[in-house]
Amino acid sequence: MIEFYTWKTPNGRKVAIMLEELGEPYRLHPVDISKEEQFAPGFLAVSPNNKIPAIVDTGAPGGPLPIFESGAILTYLAEKRGRFLAATGAERFKTLEWLYWQVGGLGPMFGQFGFFALMSKKKVPPAIDRFRTEVERLLGVLEGRLSTSPYLGGEHYTIADMATFPWMAAAMERMQPALGDSLAQKTAIHDWLARVGDRPAVKAGMKIPA
Amino acid sequence: MIEFYTWKTPNGRKVAIMLEELGEPYRLHPVDISKEEQFAPGFLAVSPNNKIPAIVDTGAPGGPLPIFESGAILTYLAEKRGRFLAATGAERFKTLEWLYWQVGGLGPMFGQFGFFALMSKKKVPPAIDRFRTEVERLLGVLEGRLSTSPYLGGEHYTIADMATFPWMAAAMERMQPALGDSLAQKTAIHDWLARVGDRPAVKAGMKIPA
Repeated sequence: MIEFYTWKTPNGRKVAIMLEELGEPYRLHPVDISKEEQFAPGFLAVSPNNKIPAIVDTGAPGGPLPIFESGAILTYLAEKRGRFLAATGAERFKTLEWLYWQVGGLGPMFGQFGFFALMSKKKVPPAIDRFRTEVERLLGVLEGRLSTSPYLGGEHYTIADMATFPWMAAAMERMQPALGDSLAQKTAIHDWLARVGDRPAVKAGMKIPA
Repeated sequence: MIEFYTWKTPNGRKVAIMLEELGEPYRLHPVDISKEEQFAPGFLAVSPNNKIPAIVDTGAPGGPLPIFESGAILTYLAEKRGRFLAATGAERFKTLEWLYWQVGGLGPMFGQFGFFALMSKKKVPPAIDRFRTEVERLLGVLEGRLSTSPYLGGEHYTIADMATFPWMAAAMERMQPALGDSLAQKTAIHDWLARVGDRPAVKAGMKIPA
């Protein structure tokens, strides 16, 4: 059984989508970050970086295995079940390079742009400009990839798409006014969002926790 | 043969250290980012995100395989040679969670703190404060891990240490005045820096490209 610690954020939803795709049995533990529940000692024992998502696989060989970091959890579940990540070869590493690109680039930069452009009460133009430039660059890179390939890893839907979809869905919902044409005109991204967003497991995962 | 595209930055040095650890034959292609060589069409064909490091394994089964993103490259080389990343089990996923933590957390946040606190001519206190808080939090998480474990992945030196060492070495060199006691007092981090920094391959990798 997978004990699943999460909240209503793009990083949490990556793992929710994967669990739904696999039909993996799991028990949901909502960690309400608006109430700072991520600092509770019980949660820190699982996730010492005080962030969701985290899991504990109570049935792992060798005893219960806690894992934090969405990219590591996606890789763990993919390798446990042999799905959504090729075991070897070019397909495996195309998937991992785009997964790392989401985790190290798109996620942090969209996060900072969202903070400075949308959430912060104090307006700090040099920070807004810096992160807008980076978000626009990343959108161009994503559009380029999806213009030549139906999915981030190549021909098949993988954990790289599951990692990127919730961030792009959040961007569509909240960042459009701040980004204007630089998001609206990316037709390959929009096609991919429709293709991925139409999957039943993606629809289900995007509503977890309710 | 590994064609290795890199520059004198922490992300490039992660891969330089790994190649030196493995004794892997490689050909060095310096990409001088101060001259914007990362935007040259030949490099973009290998690394569409216009960042170093990137590699091409010219001897991969199925034909030359280009890979970008330092985390994906480290994983590729580890799996190719069966070293510095356990093949299965808890050790594998402890290594991967800390590798993702470096790529998605420590790297981007140290990078932004360095930009706003040290590089930017325009001083933007709300941005400096935001990223200082996050750097200090991450240093606390790292100190906690290294207080109970000799290496990030556990008992053994792995690609998670190779990913984190160059960033921490850069922090020691450049961020100490801006961080003060919050870095100076982290004794487990200092012990780990000495232990990892003493490895011949780490010493060699930290000087590549010359």
